[in-house]
Amino acid sequence: MADPSTSPPLTRASVQEARELIRPFVHQTPVMTSSSLSALVSERITGGGGGGGKGGEGGTKKKRPKVRLWFKCENFQKVGAFKARGAFHAIERLKKEPGWWGEGGKWERGVVTHSSGNHAQALALAARANNIPAHIVMPSISAAPKIAATKGYGARVVFSGSTSVEREAVTAQVVRDTGARLVPPYDHPDIILGQGTLGLEFQEQVEGMMREGGAYGFGGGGRKGKKKRNKGLDVILAPCGGGGMLSGVALSCADTGILVFGTEPSFQGADDAKRAYQSPEGARIPAVSSLTIADGLRTPVGAHPWSVIYERRLVAGFYSVTDAQIRRALRLVYERMKIVVEPSAAVPLAVALYDGEFGEWLEREVGGDDEEEGDGEGEGLDVGIVFSGGNVSLEALGKLFAEEEEEEEGS
Amino acid sequence: MADPSTSPPLTRASVQEARELIRPFVHQTPVMTSSSLSALVSERITGGGGGGGKGGEGGTKKKRPKVRLWFKCENFQKVGAFKARGAFHAIERLKKEPGWWGEGGKWERGVVTHSSGNHAQALALAARANNIPAHIVMPSISAAPKIAATKGYGARVVFSGSTSVEREAVTAQVVRDTGARLVPPYDHPDIILGQGTLGLEFQEQVEGMMREGGAYGFGGGGRKGKKKRNKGLDVILAPCGGGGMLSGVALSCADTGILVFGTEPSFQGADDAKRAYQSPEGARIPAVSSLTIADGLRTPVGAHPWSVIYERRLVAGFYSVTDAQIRRALRLVYERMKIVVEPSAAVPLAVALYDGEFGEWLEREVGGDDEEEGDGEGEGLDVGIVFSGGNVSLEALGKLFAEEEEEEEGS
Repeated sequence: MADPSTSPPLTRASVQEARELIRPFVHQTPVMTSSSLSALVSERITGGGGGGGKGGEGGTKKKRPKVRLWFKCENFQKVGAFKARGAFHAIERLKKEPGWWGEGGKWERGVVTHSSGNHAQALALAARANNIPAHIVMPSISAAPKIAATKGYGARVVFSGSTSVEREAVTAQVVRDTGARLVPPYDHPDIILGQGTLGLEFQEQVEGMMREGGAYGFGGGGRKGKKKRNKGLDVILAPCGGGGMLSGVALSCADTGILVFGTEPSFQGADDAKRAYQSPEGARIPAVSSLTIADGLRTPVGAHPWSVIYERRLVAGFYSVTDAQIRRALRLVYERMKIVVEPSAAVPLAVALYDGEFGEWLEREVGGDDEEEGDGEGEGLDVGIVFSGGNVSLEALGKLFAEEEEEEEGS
Repeated sequence: MADPSTSPPLTRASVQEARELIRPFVHQTPVMTSSSLSALVSERITGGGGGGGKGGEGGTKKKRPKVRLWFKCENFQKVGAFKARGAFHAIERLKKEPGWWGEGGKWERGVVTHSSGNHAQALALAARANNIPAHIVMPSISAAPKIAATKGYGARVVFSGSTSVEREAVTAQVVRDTGARLVPPYDHPDIILGQGTLGLEFQEQVEGMMREGGAYGFGGGGRKGKKKRNKGLDVILAPCGGGGMLSGVALSCADTGILVFGTEPSFQGADDAKRAYQSPEGARIPAVSSLTIADGLRTPVGAHPWSVIYERRLVAGFYSVTDAQIRRALRLVYERMKIVVEPSAAVPLAVALYDGEFGEWLEREVGGDDEEEGDGEGEGLDVGIVFSGGNVSLEALGKLFAEEEEEEEGS
């Protein structure tokens, strides 16, 4: 990977540049809305009412929910997750490095990473799109479909033990053997900037949808001169594993007035970023060992992301949820929105629906206001939720919901 | 329900009128594309090649697949299925009947239907949106979530035995007791016309998407004066249960040149429409008893739909698939497209991917052409697939894929 010191500065403008670089290679994923889920969150606050929930369906007399959710659907991204953005951006940046691209350049030695998840497939795809060899180090205990998928993108898979020490040793050996360049999954400015492009799209898309009207009773006739109309998002909730995407989204929101919150699973200490953020010292926690169902978020937050998240305070805070809450949110996404997301992607929605601290924050922000009394329009809160990916095996999903049933029976 | 003799004629123009009537009440559902599924179908034919499959991802050097699939996503419709269209249209038509709507009108007695599926929820929703009472007759053995969902839409649920004779007897009793009007699930012109609105949208949306370019390599620079550009869909494959939606879609395509095919599960004779269509007499088969996993398609085709489908030959033919094929197609929708559809909705895709007869038809239509030699643009086939709904319990889904695993292991 390019030397981090040669990367563009970590600014919103650099995210905009990254977006231009990767535009030909990634999807602009859709933004979805859900009046029933917005109503469920709105019901958490005093005077929030049901709004556009089931009671409001049918097109008549719909009350605008006080909290309106907007979902950025990176489950529809290439390779099924936002990771395609960072991987394509890393490759584009490498291509700009002197001596790397072109005839006889270092690209011929390829790129390498260690990952058994979405980053592996993303890098394999981005490399193949440029005819660059890709070496992916995966634990030999990885699920067969993941290995097959990575090979399916044309990558060479190299097996290792399953501890991080073992994986890094094998990766270093691949670098020595092949001269391939390491492209880490999150702890690098180029990755951060690539992931951040989803935040820029998200902001523009929501503004556009508000202008066009339709969702949540925006637009339409007879509403003029009201304050805060089409103001766009107020808040974005994003999952935090290594923090590459969260810090990128935070950069994309710098100086926009949009608050960005990180969300994590709390199971077995996977909420490392929250704990570090709230500790007196603010010291990053460098190791996590959790088997949370949100398997994309078992990673400790990285150093480069942390500099954006904490040291520059571009993330406004963290919330965490239990695995049972994640399962409940996941079920709602399938049942109400009819889309496939992976457990990690359901974490921000679980926070919006179930976390007590976030509920208190909502109450302080919008509780008690009575739309009937005020001017009504533009009030309430527009909350963006990042659906980070959709890669989950149907077998794993079946087990997940079977466990949920048992839990409910037991309680 | 309105007396069928007072319904508008079964024409494309009537479908257009229906669309205006229900426009405020239903969603214009999105049309999705999938280059990997299009590539899989294209691989079935000689010279079809991989095209835009995994090999083509990444934005460079993408070859246009020979068969391009377009998916009309009624799983995102209100109540999670196309049935909302017919129900809202039926209610709007009733409101035009003299003496029915307005102060002291017959609407106060409500509407009634017997259904344990999507039509029950659709009618309950459409009734509630108009503050009309709804009585829904459901077998007492119906799954608890279905009963809860129907009650959740404000309907009164009346239980019956599970045979059609028992259900109809209870329904007749409700009519006698309450004076409610029967709104049948499919065998009525107003229902047919309402469902047909999805076909009009589908045609317009695909034409628009072709104009805008992007999907499947349409649009973009340097392609001018080529024949057949932006021609829209060539074919639509739709599931056939009672035939209300299939016949409505066929009406929406009348005189457009678009071929409409019905698709059915073959398990235990659920392919009644196919068998009738291909029989020398063309006599509708009035009873079906099948436990196919495509549970929305266990119904025999109705008389009004049959008049459109067979007597007027607005449907060009039928194809059927096994339950194992449906399961394989269903899995691909979840894994590749990341959306939730019910088993019935996967039937047309299963036909496109696996049915031998349809494969032969494809081969005759587009096989052997070599795009390299011809002018290339606008060649091949644009196939519309109706994803009819997304209502499936996660538990049922888990079992479905568990069964599939066993089957594969056993084979």
